[in-house]
Amino acid sequence: MMCEIGVVNMKKTLVIIAHPEVESSSVQRFLIDSIKELPCVDHYLLREETPDVLADRVKLKQYQRIIFQFPMYWYSAPYILKKWLDEVFSVEFAENHLTDKELGIVVSLGLSEHNFASGRSEKYTLSEIFRPFEALANKCHMIFLPIFSIPLFSYLEEKEKKKLLIAYEQYLTKENLATFQSKETWFKEKLNHMIEGNTEEKEKLANILSVMEANREELEDLLVIVKEMRLEE
Amino acid sequence: MMCEIGVVNMKKTLVIIAHPEVESSSVQRFLIDSIKELPCVDHYLLREETPDVLADRVKLKQYQRIIFQFPMYWYSAPYILKKWLDEVFSVEFAENHLTDKELGIVVSLGLSEHNFASGRSEKYTLSEIFRPFEALANKCHMIFLPIFSIPLFSYLEEKEKKKLLIAYEQYLTKENLATFQSKETWFKEKLNHMIEGNTEEKEKLANILSVMEANREELEDLLVIVKEMRLEE
Repeated sequence: MMCEIGVVNMKKTLVIIAHPEVESSSVQRFLIDSIKELPCVDHYLLREETPDVLADRVKLKQYQRIIFQFPMYWYSAPYILKKWLDEVFSVEFAENHLTDKELGIVVSLGLSEHNFASGRSEKYTLSEIFRPFEALANKCHMIFLPIFSIPLFSYLEEKEKKKLLIAYEQYLTKENLATFQSKETWFKEKLNHMIEGNTEEKEKLANILSVMEANREELEDLLVIVKEMRLEE
Repeated sequence: MMCEIGVVNMKKTLVIIAHPEVESSSVQRFLIDSIKELPCVDHYLLREETPDVLADRVKLKQYQRIIFQFPMYWYSAPYILKKWLDEVFSVEFAENHLTDKELGIVVSLGLSEHNFASGRSEKYTLSEIFRPFEALANKCHMIFLPIFSIPLFSYLEEKEKKKLLIAYEQYLTKENLATFQSKETWFKEKLNHMIEGNTEEKEKLANILSVMEANREELEDLLVIVKEMRLEE
């Protein structure tokens, strides 16, 4: 699989993993094994030590999609992620160097997601609980992706784990999570508008549009085939 | 001033301060000086070191009101508070040993609170941003107090600082922040109901009610006098 994301000199996805004992976590090991299969995705284990601030800032700039991956501890990430944020993110860095990138959260839960609702034991939804990360994305002019939650991993059967794997890989790599699809739609509308108003260039523009639509369909077809092949393995 | 809170062997308020450089923070020094004047309030500076888990749990159990006090870093507390929470709070401890206590947040902000609203720069209200702490209070069966925010402390004039001081001391010590007043109201209503339905005990019950009301008024009067005296100092 090629690793093209349409932006020159930009890698696809960096998964920043915050877990105090990542080696002993079955869900983290499962996810990391999956990441290793994906050429467009790198991962980075946060450690207790003070981060190399400048190196980490350079690293962040290289990726289009940043994922924070962690188990939920007291309605947030384990403290090592906050420590890393407090130290690596200055206001200047946040406001100027991450614009238009995507920020996603992959969170494992010790409870069914059903409990995260008003009137239920946890009272608030995951969207409410992770508002501080959405506020951070807002400050950084980043696009906040839908939260990817993994409740009760250790109770999953093999078939459910395979489904999880596909969904996870799509979350890390699929173009149209929140940005590309909408950007494409915007271009299509723009092109259609131009075609209507421009008789001279009409044919050329219509051609661009049809190529764009064909690419999208081809991509969707390929994704389905790849996923099916993987399931049969 | 006596330190009576109506619960035997229970101290009033513990302020847990999470600031990476508390000595160089003018707002924290201002608040700590104020705490030192209050006989019912203790404070506790969180440090980088791993906490003494058992000692801290014993400490928490001794107070009726727990306050987390910190500057807002990336839409939450500095990581040392999260580190302390991750280490000191087990599920067993949280669910069984803090019931009916109060949890408050005193947060200093580098921006006007006006910015914390939809359509404004920070997009979300402080109530939304601190939802994880409200979820924690919910899990611990604690009463979550209104958030006490201190925006732009260094721009405050002397008169504004005095007003802040009174409001802060009330936040730390006033009985009727969220619990006592409502409990008292509940008792009053209950007593009034009993008086209506019970001719035999009517006089005795009416007497209890009037003592209760007199105490409340006396307390309010005393508070006003003390605050005025302090202002005149």
